[in-house]
Amino acid sequence: MNTAVETPTYTARLLIACADRPGIVARVASFLYEQGANIVSSHQYSTDPTGGRFFLRTEFFLEGLAEARESFQYAFQAQVAGPLEMEWKIRYWGERQRIAILVSRHEHCLLDLLWRWRRGEIDGEIVMVLSNHPDLADQVAGAQVPYHHVPVASGEKQVAEASMLALMAGRVDVVVLARYMQILSEDFLQRLSVPVINIHHSFLPAFAGADPYRRARERGVKLIGATAHYVTAELDAGPIIEQGVERVTHLHSAIDLERVGRDVERLVLARAVCLHLDDRVIADGSRTIVF
Amino acid sequence: MNTAVETPTYTARLLIACADRPGIVARVASFLYEQGANIVSSHQYSTDPTGGRFFLRTEFFLEGLAEARESFQYAFQAQVAGPLEMEWKIRYWGERQRIAILVSRHEHCLLDLLWRWRRGEIDGEIVMVLSNHPDLADQVAGAQVPYHHVPVASGEKQVAEASMLALMAGRVDVVVLARYMQILSEDFLQRLSVPVINIHHSFLPAFAGADPYRRARERGVKLIGATAHYVTAELDAGPIIEQGVERVTHLHSAIDLERVGRDVERLVLARAVCLHLDDRVIADGSRTIVF
Amino acid sequence: MNTAVETPTYTARLLIACADRPGIVARVASFLYEQGANIVSSHQYSTDPTGGRFFLRTEFFLEGLAEARESFQYAFQAQVAGPLEMEWKIRYWGERQRIAILVSRHEHCLLDLLWRWRRGEIDGEIVMVLSNHPDLADQVAGAQVPYHHVPVASGEKQVAEASMLALMAGRVDVVVLARYMQILSEDFLQRLSVPVINIHHSFLPAFAGADPYRRARERGVKLIGATAHYVTAELDAGPIIEQGVERVTHLHSAIDLERVGRDVERLVLARAVCLHLDDRVIADGSRTIVF
Amino acid sequence: MNTAVETPTYTARLLIACADRPGIVARVASFLYEQGANIVSSHQYSTDPTGGRFFLRTEFFLEGLAEARESFQYAFQAQVAGPLEMEWKIRYWGERQRIAILVSRHEHCLLDLLWRWRRGEIDGEIVMVLSNHPDLADQVAGAQVPYHHVPVASGEKQVAEASMLALMAGRVDVVVLARYMQILSEDFLQRLSVPVINIHHSFLPAFAGADPYRRARERGVKLIGATAHYVTAELDAGPIIEQGVERVTHLHSAIDLERVGRDVERLVLARAVCLHLDDRVIADGSRTIVF
Repeated sequence: MNTAVETPTYTARLLIACADRPGIVARVASFLYEQGANIVSSHQYSTDPTGGRFFLRTEFFLEGLAEARESFQYAFQAQVAGPLEMEWKIRYWGERQRIAILVSRHEHCLLDLLWRWRRGEIDGEIVMVLSNHPDLADQVAGAQVPYHHVPVASGEKQVAEASMLALMAGRVDVVVLARYMQILSEDFLQRLSVPVINIHHSFLPAFAGADPYRRARERGVKLIGATAHYVTAELDAGPIIEQGVERVTHLHSAIDLERVGRDVERLVLARAVCLHLDDRVIADGSRTIVF
Repeated sequence: MNTAVETPTYTARLLIACADRPGIVARVASFLYEQGANIVSSHQYSTDPTGGRFFLRTEFFLEGLAEARESFQYAFQAQVAGPLEMEWKIRYWGERQRIAILVSRHEHCLLDLLWRWRRGEIDGEIVMVLSNHPDLADQVAGAQVPYHHVPVASGEKQVAEASMLALMAGRVDVVVLARYMQILSEDFLQRLSVPVINIHHSFLPAFAGADPYRRARERGVKLIGATAHYVTAELDAGPIIEQGVERVTHLHSAIDLERVGRDVERLVLARAVCLHLDDRVIADGSRTIVF
Repeated sequence: MNTAVETPTYTARLLIACADRPGIVARVASFLYEQGANIVSSHQYSTDPTGGRFFLRTEFFLEGLAEARESFQYAFQAQVAGPLEMEWKIRYWGERQRIAILVSRHEHCLLDLLWRWRRGEIDGEIVMVLSNHPDLADQVAGAQVPYHHVPVASGEKQVAEASMLALMAGRVDVVVLARYMQILSEDFLQRLSVPVINIHHSFLPAFAGADPYRRARERGVKLIGATAHYVTAELDAGPIIEQGVERVTHLHSAIDLERVGRDVERLVLARAVCLHLDDRVIADGSRTIVF
Repeated sequence: MNTAVETPTYTARLLIACADRPGIVARVASFLYEQGANIVSSHQYSTDPTGGRFFLRTEFFLEGLAEARESFQYAFQAQVAGPLEMEWKIRYWGERQRIAILVSRHEHCLLDLLWRWRRGEIDGEIVMVLSNHPDLADQVAGAQVPYHHVPVASGEKQVAEASMLALMAGRVDVVVLARYMQILSEDFLQRLSVPVINIHHSFLPAFAGADPYRRARERGVKLIGATAHYVTAELDAGPIIEQGVERVTHLHSAIDLERVGRDVERLVLARAVCLHLDDRVIADGSRTIVF
């Protein structure tokens, strides 16, 4: 368990998406003011003020809200969200999201996330690690997180996915693929129905397919990068959350490039996971808005 | 003259600073809604929701505002800004700020700004270039901008500053020091009373004083940087607007480092000038908020 | 004309490529020592010490070489290069390579190269600019470089390429495509038979084809990049010389992304051109070694 | 223990420093050729070919050298190093340097080094961890490295330094200060007489002294950096090995800046340690050459 003790920096966080039209901010802000809320931060974005989509993320203090959550939410729906046809959710301070990490054999992203979590850098609970290999069980045991070995036998992916669903369904709020080397089926993603974050290498220009580091080296690539994105049915083509790069030279062997790649991957994935848990990432179709 | 033709992306931009307290956004947003405005973008920041300072930048469309500016501003002052003790200003689309560039002999920042201005990248008018040297007159002539040579004789800085004030006072909205190698007096800055943006080299760690590139090289510095900041009475210590770095190695001679430094300086200064002209930079004491 | 006056930093630069085997450096260094040379810098690289290819770039001072170039070269061929079956060339200080720039309508890369050239940052002579459009003639005239308008009529690319060959053949040592938007035929490249350097945008992941900035934005891309590479018959797939990136956010419009892209492109292309002119780039198949 | 199994990529690595003069490379390369060596890689640098200092790092294969080390070294001294008055050393493949890590309470750099070491990324042996606090003993125990708690009582630094010397003298080849918050005395450094690598935060511009993140934030700093350097008697002013930066904004709290700082610090320190262990860093006075 993450034992970091923190002072609340807000009482609740309100997230809104709706068709853009005049008066949205006025309605929301007036409602919060009338309730006695003190806005801490607020970010908004409109894809197009005429006929586009509007997104708002706001954090506020409001004394006594702990005891009045239901009436607050009811009033917001009745007075604001209903009339303006909003999708919305509210997250109260201390409501930590439950995270499942899926991993194969490469441990760098997993260990980095576990380390940050123990330090209190990650605002969520890592509740389980699932792997198609048993290799990393010991390292996860040290962090006192349950490790489930779910092998994927050849031609038996459906069985494995069913096992994973049984473990995760209703028990996790977000899934992080920390170098999980199996492709997840569209059916699995639909049944899981929580956001899935993936990390993959990327280069300028990109080298899809097998052995990307060797091929990047053969092209004389000077920058090694990584991209964290939401998983969609189309492999490696989901909305991008975060990216990073490092410079390399011809002196880097393919092994060196993989090492640099690991460093970029774990940083970029950690940043993406933190942004997601802070509700800062809004996926709008294939785009992302990062507040 | 900058001849770029553009479609308006907003009717007016409203900038507000005041003591933070509940209800500010509600009041501003409700006012804009009642006037019929359609908000395009909005950024806000509070240094501390309890007793801190609140900043807002919002752009909106409002049909008919061109003919009703005075009544709009009067109403905003009476209904919102007055009661909430706001400092505020409004900038209408197409109101371009007047820019004076001060330069000595290094032309890289000046030419880069002139080039971007001709392309329409800079939302303002470069109305004059002042220099303590005649060297760059020809290059500025090509851009059809007046070039004033204001020499600074030894011990006669006051005279030069008086000449510069006579040229600029009331005629410019922002001054850009594009490698102007004279220190401006506190008295001059007060009389000028418009924001002054400076660019200076900076390293990790910093090397203040003479011959910084040689000294950086002698320390084995691996990153060359530049910092754009607002000028205050304390030299090179004003609020930072933008920064950048490039990697270097021991193979870079002092001349090479200066070349890399020039590339970083002109990029960072251009970004800072654009951010300022877009009213995205708020100086709060020695800090900056960059929306 | 570039009027920078410089002190020689070497007398000659020797470039060697051959099959790797023991004793190469000993033979070359002993030869230079016996001639009385004083080595200033030396870089070498072997793709594989067993059966690979060996590359050497060395700069040295040698008094009196100006008057004894032929005998020096004859001796090197007879004593070293012949026996070791080397490809080699020598470049004497002050032998400036002749550069042709090909451009269409985007002027940012062209102007940046011209500016750097006038400053003395580019160790070569820009001897002509060729364009399929007349638009940039005036700007090039200011730099006193001949501008040739070679239109490419629909279906008449062969005619245009013949005109360009007539202008360039035997008169240029390197061709720089500074945003030249026509695809050059394999036949043209073979007849030209000098290195051709291109700049193209690149993203993480890459977006080949039309309208890349719009598509990058729709994917939520967070890094905008550029790649400078040698042109081969396979479009945009030649050996990479240099790359760069800048961070962007969802607040960047497609126009903003293009502006950031221009800044990256001109920096990366300028660095690539300088590296090439300094004979620091060795293309080994599809790879590059950058000394 | 690091159990990575690797194929030798060289037999021996030769490091040379001497006054520059003609013929050095010829003598060294000829010697190696006559011995039958096959050069894998070679880097050289001269601070000034006339009266400067010359540095060489070369790796070579040489069959049978394992059994003939003494005669090889004797011959090199007699035939090359003696006559040319060289400082030199040779490192044979598999001779791993012994590393001591000094740490206080911040564990991020320590854990990152331990993790990389277990993965085989660090070519050396971490033989002990010393700390003035007991806090990190458990985490180091997991890596099976001895942890020595050497408290530094107020006014008793000499006692602590004597204890540390007793533990380290003759038993370590390099000391890494992985956020060790005590200043080491000049006397201690002299007695220790092995290289000491430190990591410290650095900003553009630098903020020396207490509470740098808070002060950087108050200045509106946009880049957070870290510098790894060799420790000299003058605090934080030794030759720089490696540097890095990350972008930040006004949205980063002081706590966020520290988190970003940790990420930069551990990456930069790890890179510096690896460069040092690979004998790629040459300190020449206050400069470094990084091959």
